[in-house]
Amino acid sequence: MAQPPFAHLARTIRERVAAQGFMQLMGADLSALEPGGATISVARRPDLLQQHGFFHGGVTAFLVDNGTTIAAATRLREGQACLTAEYKLNLLAPARGERLVCRARVVRAGRRMSVVAADVFSVQDGRETQTAIALATIAVVDADGLPPAGSRPGEVPEDMDPDRPGP
Amino acid sequence: MAQPPFAHLARTIRERVAAQGFMQLMGADLSALEPGGATISVARRPDLLQQHGFFHGGVTAFLVDNGTTIAAATRLREGQACLTAEYKLNLLAPARGERLVCRARVVRAGRRMSVVAADVFSVQDGRETQTAIALATIAVVDADGLPPAGSRPGEVPEDMDPDRPGP
Amino acid sequence: MAQPPFAHLARTIRERVAAQGFMQLMGADLSALEPGGATISVARRPDLLQQHGFFHGGVTAFLVDNGTTIAAATRLREGQACLTAEYKLNLLAPARGERLVCRARVVRAGRRMSVVAADVFSVQDGRETQTAIALATIAVVDADGLPPAGSRPGEVPEDMDPDRPGP
Amino acid sequence: MAQPPFAHLARTIRERVAAQGFMQLMGADLSALEPGGATISVARRPDLLQQHGFFHGGVTAFLVDNGTTIAAATRLREGQACLTAEYKLNLLAPARGERLVCRARVVRAGRRMSVVAADVFSVQDGRETQTAIALATIAVVDADGLPPAGSRPGEVPEDMDPDRPGP
Repeated sequence: MAQPPFAHLARTIRERVAAQGFMQLMGADLSALEPGGATISVARRPDLLQQHGFFHGGVTAFLVDNGTTIAAATRLREGQACLTAEYKLNLLAPARGERLVCRARVVRAGRRMSVVAADVFSVQDGRETQTAIALATIAVVDADGLPPAGSRPGEVPEDMDPDRPGP
Repeated sequence: MAQPPFAHLARTIRERVAAQGFMQLMGADLSALEPGGATISVARRPDLLQQHGFFHGGVTAFLVDNGTTIAAATRLREGQACLTAEYKLNLLAPARGERLVCRARVVRAGRRMSVVAADVFSVQDGRETQTAIALATIAVVDADGLPPAGSRPGEVPEDMDPDRPGP
Repeated sequence: MAQPPFAHLARTIRERVAAQGFMQLMGADLSALEPGGATISVARRPDLLQQHGFFHGGVTAFLVDNGTTIAAATRLREGQACLTAEYKLNLLAPARGERLVCRARVVRAGRRMSVVAADVFSVQDGRETQTAIALATIAVVDADGLPPAGSRPGEVPEDMDPDRPGP
Repeated sequence: MAQPPFAHLARTIRERVAAQGFMQLMGADLSALEPGGATISVARRPDLLQQHGFFHGGVTAFLVDNGTTIAAATRLREGQACLTAEYKLNLLAPARGERLVCRARVVRAGRRMSVVAADVFSVQDGRETQTAIALATIAVVDADGLPPAGSRPGEVPEDMDPDRPGP
């Protein structure tokens, strides 16, 4: 299993992420993508907030969930895919500001699982404040066993590897 | 600080949750609410899915984030509020189905922090499959220090307790 | 890969656990062992305490670390081994008492990873108080790739699967 | 509550840590201690290993448990104490080597809780390999409510703040 050229891998990742309905609902932007790292962010909108006017904790969790999995994907080899196994996040400060940015970086890329760290920042007037920190475990699987992107649930074979946990 | 009648507390919780723009965006339903427990769910919609047609991991995280905090809120005393400090979740199986349901229950209600466990299930044809499990720490704070619900960020006093982390 | 009779598996698990020098240092007792569950405990000793006379948090962590991995091992198939990938634990109350008991149960046994929950209790005068709660991810691997129990570090082949993380 | 001179705080921390029976059992060494950071390590001994000759996962957990709490303690103010609330750790690689070192650093020091990150390394022939990564939440409490160090459990007042969770 050779390491594909990164440009090819990056294009595949961007296509898969773009196919996520939830990514579009959140209006999330996958900006930087490099081997071992990813940056994903959302702009402030009233429907992403909680009752005190801060970004909802669920928005932070979405950024962590997607950002860490995407970062892990940048280190995959040909024929591999990855899926979120678990993560833990600490909320550090109210998520004010115009934009919420998650930067994820691979701590260790393994053959069966990768560990990814992430930091989340709110941006206001060009200044960043860290609002969350996270640590995630991403399962690395054979891409063959996964349903094709865009398939409908009815098309997913019943014997799909039950070990495949996540998005 | 007396324990208010639960009906009053439940009404306050429902009002606060209803004031979350993100709750509405997700179309989430806070069904059961009892002392020490909460049930929150979302119905399947294309814009809540990932590229394989399952509920996005970020939707599970949102349910866990909100469900555990709401469960902790059912054990608050007069003048207290609560905010998510941290949580960890494991994704167990693809989140198929028509509905995704999170049931959260308080493991320990403390004066300064509460610990809440949550299980997430997908529902298909009336059958439930567990798709995630989570463990959360919720900070208990004085309600006085919090900005009023619905306040805009500009109105939040700059000296607000920096220890207040979450939604 | 057939499921071996449980008595045989239980014997193997007990042998491996008995070969842990740290298990002996802690004076830990692996009492109950059934498919999907394990109970491990330690008796109070001055050298297992912290400065306030409670069991040290590290003792709780040891019980969780070992208890969850042993519980996962009860669900292994022929030729498989398991290793701790990660866990999270919440300390709920001071760990007083004469004995500290960890009960671990498999939430989901997978082909590549298992998720295990654990509760820790202190026992005083026959009464139990929950002192911690935990959630762990255990990697399931081929037993072939592991060094034989009792091997010295110098004997471990350098090309051992770098994905094998834990005890 | 003024910030005491760090030399005084460091002395108090070292005294408290030295009073932990478990710290002595592990033969652990608290080397570096600076505002916001702590380094704690153990030397290889047969009774700190698991069956494959690596440091036991419980030893890593002990280092993380103590290291993160000690790091949080370096940022306390007069009259405050701190106690482990929760942590999560990922094991990244077998903990070989002559020494296992945990470096903890405060990510955010709060009035009620602090968040601390930690990295664990095994040292062999002067070379370090990262073997674990962790994220912890440490509760900050009034020192008054805690039992004096060295007190026996029978001396601990029954009405001690039940929110005080940890070592």
